Amino acid sequence: MPRESVKDQIIAAAVDALHSKGFNGTSVQDITDAAKVPKGSFYNHFGSKEELAVAALDRYWQLVLAGLQPLSDPSTPPMDRLRQYFRRLAERGRTREYRTGCMIGNMSTEMPDQSRAVRERLAVVLAAWSRAIESCVREAQADGSMRRDLDARIVAAFLLNSFEGAIMRSKVDKDAASFAAFEEVVFTALAP
Amino acid sequence: MPRESVKDQIIAAAVDALHSKGFNGTSVQDITDAAKVPKGSFYNHFGSKEELAVAALDRYWQLVLAGLQPLSDPSTPPMDRLRQYFRRLAERGRTREYRTGCMIGNMSTEMPDQSRAVRERLAVVLAAWSRAIESCVREAQADGSMRRDLDARIVAAFLLNSFEGAIMRSKVDKDAASFAAFEEVVFTALAP
Repeated sequence: MPRESVKDQIIAAAVDALHSKGFNGTSVQDITDAAKVPKGSFYNHFGSKEELAVAALDRYWQLVLAGLQPLSDPSTPPMDRLRQYFRRLAERGRTREYRTGCMIGNMSTEMPDQSRAVRERLAVVLAAWSRAIESCVREAQADGSMRRDLDARIVAAFLLNSFEGAIMRSKVDKDAASFAAFEEVVFTALAP
Repeated sequence: MPRESVKDQIIAAAVDALHSKGFNGTSVQDITDAAKVPKGSFYNHFGSKEELAVAALDRYWQLVLAGLQPLSDPSTPPMDRLRQYFRRLAERGRTREYRTGCMIGNMSTEMPDQSRAVRERLAVVLAAWSRAIESCVREAQADGSMRRDLDARIVAAFLLNSFEGAIMRSKVDKDAASFAAFEEVVFTALAP
């Protein structure tokens, strides 16, 4: 197996640091220290901390994308897939003691007016995430397990945004109450 | 009228700065410069930037609290009050070009693991905010305009968290789509 490149090491360290401390809470030095590479090597690979933030977002998005797969698994009814999907995300919050939250949500709160590049990348990523949820919503409406008087695209965006709000609240309260409220309200109120 | 005290000037400048740039994006110097007071005067009034963040949060919360009043106005049906309340908040986002978002949401994303004092204050503030919404939800359930198979306390927390998620998304997309999705899904799916 090829040795992980310096660039990869920096991106991996950046995902950890940016996820837990945010863009403004992390210096280039923090990242190169964590990656165990000389600070000077940073600018061989990235023009700026902002450019690295985009690369870290892309790396994090790959993880989110992998987690989306069960949403299109035809062996499980679509409404169950949706419920299980959000439960898995909530469970991940619990195992991390509701600390870091979602890096995409964190960046969406901190960075849109600080970096156009990050904002544009966030918009693309959130739109793709919404679309993956939308397909499953559409299937649930088609098989009659979800109410049909709401547009699937709008329901999907609402679910994603609401869940990000639940993550935010769990960071403050350090408990799963916001996730439980999300599940109860969503799956009661969207039933046909 | 008494002259605004130096302490008040610092808090007012801190609300603006922390709201738009976040805790880690703002230095004590940024705040004292904006308040037009000598940097040295800061530590006569506050033990730390963290202590000032709590004071700024309290000041911001007073504004949120004032905005909650129409939620208990008996001359408007409770479901209309809820709809108008969230519309007003969304409208405020629009007039600010979806830039700063909600300071409480921003702090909830950035600060819980950085400052116990801020986290504890956020928990109190969010609980009070939820309770104000809950009273109106309870009235809407009582007059039959909202479905009654969901607990009012849980619906209220869900509405607040979901709206914070919509604010987050509006900062990325720079449009009102997330607020429109919130309104459409919530007021369709919570109808009896």
